[in-house]
Amino acid sequence: MAFYNSRETLVDDMLSALLQTTELEHLATSEGTAVVIRAGHEPGTDPGDDQVAVISGGGSGHEPAHVGFIGEGMLTAAVPGSLFASPPVSAVLEAIRSVTGPAGCLLIIKNYTGDRLNFGLAAERARQEGYAVETVLVSDDVALPEIDQPRGLAGTVLVHKTAGHLAASGASLEEVASGARRVAQSLSTIGLSLRAARLPGASTDTSRGAELGLGIHNEPGAQPVEVQGASDAVAAVLSAVAPETIDEGSGLVVLLNDLGGCSPQEGLVLAHEVIRQLGQQRISRFIGPVRAMSSLDMHGFSVTLAPARPDLLEAVDAPSSAPAWVPAVALTPPRRRSGGGQSPETPDESRSEGPGEDSDGNSVWQVSTDGRLEAAADNACAALIAAQEELDELDRVAGDADAGTTFSAGAASVSALLQDGGLGFADPAAGLARMARALETGMGGSSGVLLAILATAASRALAEGSSGAEALGAGIASMQHHGGASEGDRTMLDALIPAHRVLASGGGLTEAADAAAQGARGTAELEAKAGRAAYVPGYKARDTQDAGAVAIAKLFRALSDSLEG
Amino acid sequence: MAFYNSRETLVDDMLSALLQTTELEHLATSEGTAVVIRAGHEPGTDPGDDQVAVISGGGSGHEPAHVGFIGEGMLTAAVPGSLFASPPVSAVLEAIRSVTGPAGCLLIIKNYTGDRLNFGLAAERARQEGYAVETVLVSDDVALPEIDQPRGLAGTVLVHKTAGHLAASGASLEEVASGARRVAQSLSTIGLSLRAARLPGASTDTSRGAELGLGIHNEPGAQPVEVQGASDAVAAVLSAVAPETIDEGSGLVVLLNDLGGCSPQEGLVLAHEVIRQLGQQRISRFIGPVRAMSSLDMHGFSVTLAPARPDLLEAVDAPSSAPAWVPAVALTPPRRRSGGGQSPETPDESRSEGPGEDSDGNSVWQVSTDGRLEAAADNACAALIAAQEELDELDRVAGDADAGTTFSAGAASVSALLQDGGLGFADPAAGLARMARALETGMGGSSGVLLAILATAASRALAEGSSGAEALGAGIASMQHHGGASEGDRTMLDALIPAHRVLASGGGLTEAADAAAQGARGTAELEAKAGRAAYVPGYKARDTQDAGAVAIAKLFRALSDSLEG
Repeated sequence: MAFYNSRETLVDDMLSALLQTTELEHLATSEGTAVVIRAGHEPGTDPGDDQVAVISGGGSGHEPAHVGFIGEGMLTAAVPGSLFASPPVSAVLEAIRSVTGPAGCLLIIKNYTGDRLNFGLAAERARQEGYAVETVLVSDDVALPEIDQPRGLAGTVLVHKTAGHLAASGASLEEVASGARRVAQSLSTIGLSLRAARLPGASTDTSRGAELGLGIHNEPGAQPVEVQGASDAVAAVLSAVAPETIDEGSGLVVLLNDLGGCSPQEGLVLAHEVIRQLGQQRISRFIGPVRAMSSLDMHGFSVTLAPARPDLLEAVDAPSSAPAWVPAVALTPPRRRSGGGQSPETPDESRSEGPGEDSDGNSVWQVSTDGRLEAAADNACAALIAAQEELDELDRVAGDADAGTTFSAGAASVSALLQDGGLGFADPAAGLARMARALETGMGGSSGVLLAILATAASRALAEGSSGAEALGAGIASMQHHGGASEGDRTMLDALIPAHRVLASGGGLTEAADAAAQGARGTAELEAKAGRAAYVPGYKARDTQDAGAVAIAKLFRALSDSLEG
Repeated sequence: MAFYNSRETLVDDMLSALLQTTELEHLATSEGTAVVIRAGHEPGTDPGDDQVAVISGGGSGHEPAHVGFIGEGMLTAAVPGSLFASPPVSAVLEAIRSVTGPAGCLLIIKNYTGDRLNFGLAAERARQEGYAVETVLVSDDVALPEIDQPRGLAGTVLVHKTAGHLAASGASLEEVASGARRVAQSLSTIGLSLRAARLPGASTDTSRGAELGLGIHNEPGAQPVEVQGASDAVAAVLSAVAPETIDEGSGLVVLLNDLGGCSPQEGLVLAHEVIRQLGQQRISRFIGPVRAMSSLDMHGFSVTLAPARPDLLEAVDAPSSAPAWVPAVALTPPRRRSGGGQSPETPDESRSEGPGEDSDGNSVWQVSTDGRLEAAADNACAALIAAQEELDELDRVAGDADAGTTFSAGAASVSALLQDGGLGFADPAAGLARMARALETGMGGSSGVLLAILATAASRALAEGSSGAEALGAGIASMQHHGGASEGDRTMLDALIPAHRVLASGGGLTEAADAAAQGARGTAELEAKAGRAAYVPGYKARDTQDAGAVAIAKLFRALSDSLEG
């Protein structure tokens, strides 16, 4: 299965999309076959009339080649045939007639018998009609060194670029043709695939494994090959293409072509391997990973190498409006710099604003110099550590039975900081910020991040002059904003919000702890809407309290016992 | 098998390629996680210092998102996590610190718990440090309408574009954030996959079929779905996303996203179907097919729709230097024009130069007004038709036993033209040109095109004043050029070249026919280097003459019998 309609409609469907989404123009030939030309290109009226026209084409199934390379500085027209089949002579001839002015035209032909003959006969007929026509054959395949007629592969795109650049620069037909031929003769391409292409309507040919030296029409590769991954595959390809025999001392132009079935991630890993194995210093320009000359969905890639001669460099560096052309880049050593330099231990004090004046004398968060707040915090930590098993058990119903472990871990890291003297509430805002860091790094799970968000936002509110209750409210609001849950969703909020309501209306900690406990009990009647329990299909948690809400209730109880008990 | 090295090295391998092939800069955090920023962007020194910084990120595996969208007019920095896992708070915080100046920064967060919490806590900590930070959540998934927290999918990229455009335009943090939120809330995305993503090192999960409403972390889709191809698949997606409820009267912005495993051809066919089924008039801007937000190699696609409000249109129309951004296009009706208007029957006379003066009185190709040449041609056609079985049998050894059929068909079409009075040699150049057209359309196979090339080039040479022998030589040269074969390759050339050699040195037709016959006999000693026989592995054709060479010999013999017999 694949996202095609049928083999018969494939080319028409693709051309329909291309013609509606680009500036290209479709030229219907007398035999109904397609020619695609740069819109508005009219020899005799076009500003580019004095430029050599550059035409390529061949069987379809290699998209974006060749239609995607129509544009300023590349092709003037493309002649797509049926799937993997050369276009008829009449279509090529029509393309020549449509875009060729007095400057003449160059046909860029991949070296397959059908293309050679059909483009060749079209060239002869056009000459007979008085057009100046030259042809260049691309035969960049190095998979079968003994063969007289190597195939044309992805390197063809570099010939498009060279010819298009020369034509755009105003070169004569002879200059464009000879420049294109020079580059064509300097190209070496070889590909490797893990899986052959699947034709529309056909199933996968499972008889073929990984192959080196493949063609782009699903013909078997030159040899089977054993590869374990990207590193192996690139090594096999580079060994076959022999970069040391191609580099003339000025480095290489490298084209990494996705044959159609590589994931974006594979493309990047292959690029990494090609650069690593060739050595960055040997690569003058790198193009890719790019789908330039595909073979339907063939799960493979090809590497094209050429010596970085000045004419090729000039051509690949020139801009082009062709939609499928990807700019060539000169590689740079990875630019790395270290972070802002603040150690994780001291970010807050160094940039945060001062803690501000305590504005609210009756707050339980008032400046503490007698250790009462520290003792209360330690007491709360101890209570949560003691409740580990109870909370894990509650969590077993709706989660993965680790709520107790998570809260216990958070409590332990806060407790450790207290014991070390690293946490004090003489400056409550700074103390809360430090506690937030301990929860962020020591507690784990979503709960740890949520409580760190609460503590961080509350700390900032305190520093900006809020009362303790206001700061708790700011923390809860931030937790709701980032966490996305509301009261009634069976989360920690179902204990936190009732407790805050009490404090905000002037109540004390004991009353707040009562409200938290009541809220937690209420979660036994709720269905989960957030947190992990929300993803348990058809889950009804009735009769079991939410572990997070229970933990919050225990926290408030321990604080009230210490501070008001 | 896939082109990865390992799951563990995936993110580092990809970043290595991206950093060497782009202008991006890598920021190592204290915990070794990655932040990638626009190179040279230094708040306090950068020209963009007065602009709001735009930061996104999330688990890796969605490339090119998010690093590929760093660039002018899009993201200032991206924070890639491990595969499908949110980046840590510290990395997000480091990104904020590195690129945020007095104008503040916006965090664009896909709506997943991990991203929401880690980016959220980083925002809180950055605010505590004095930075102005806003966040926008993207939750464009419409696959699960009943869920409170829809996922963030490919629509995220349109939020990047909107925020980046506003920031580049000098908007304030509040304006950037509210503009991004407005667009985020207007997005609807749904995807369909034929196959789940394959994680590096894992095998394909064959238990899952086609799914509608998929996530991008390989979680099962909302529902299984039956599709037969592109048309079905697009219909299912569009029906789920309900375009009529989104269009506010000014049309739609459409993003067609390849989830990573579609071939280039599938992408184009899907684009065709989306445009066809939505209706071109309803589409204000079309973006794609593009790999924007992939899910490794998931064989699927998603469609994002948004009402074409002025702010979104302005944003998607603005240019961006981000390498993965593909321009939005306003669709156009396919531009079609018909060909040059020359009917296939009369192209040659209408543009070819005159036949020229006959310069060579002793040529057999001299102007004929007595019907001798026509009779000779008809005799040659009859000889080839009579030889059909003999030639097919010769071809059975090395080819597909159709050489006789092919030559017979060519001869029949030339003969038919002669009988109809459509072919005469009063003007030999024009006659050869007409014969070439008959061979091109009536003969078939490579031989038909090759002989058409020969006749066309010979016709042109005659028209330019060459002698008959010279014209034959020009035809043979053209046939060699386009066909790629040489004498000795076991082809028609092995009879043609010896015959031409005789004529060029002043010999007559009978002597030429002898030479052709001798050449044909010699092919029994040759191995095939061109033509179909070259692809028969280990083929030795010894003791069998090449069918094409024999046909040419018979042709010359028939001509000499008629004209000199």
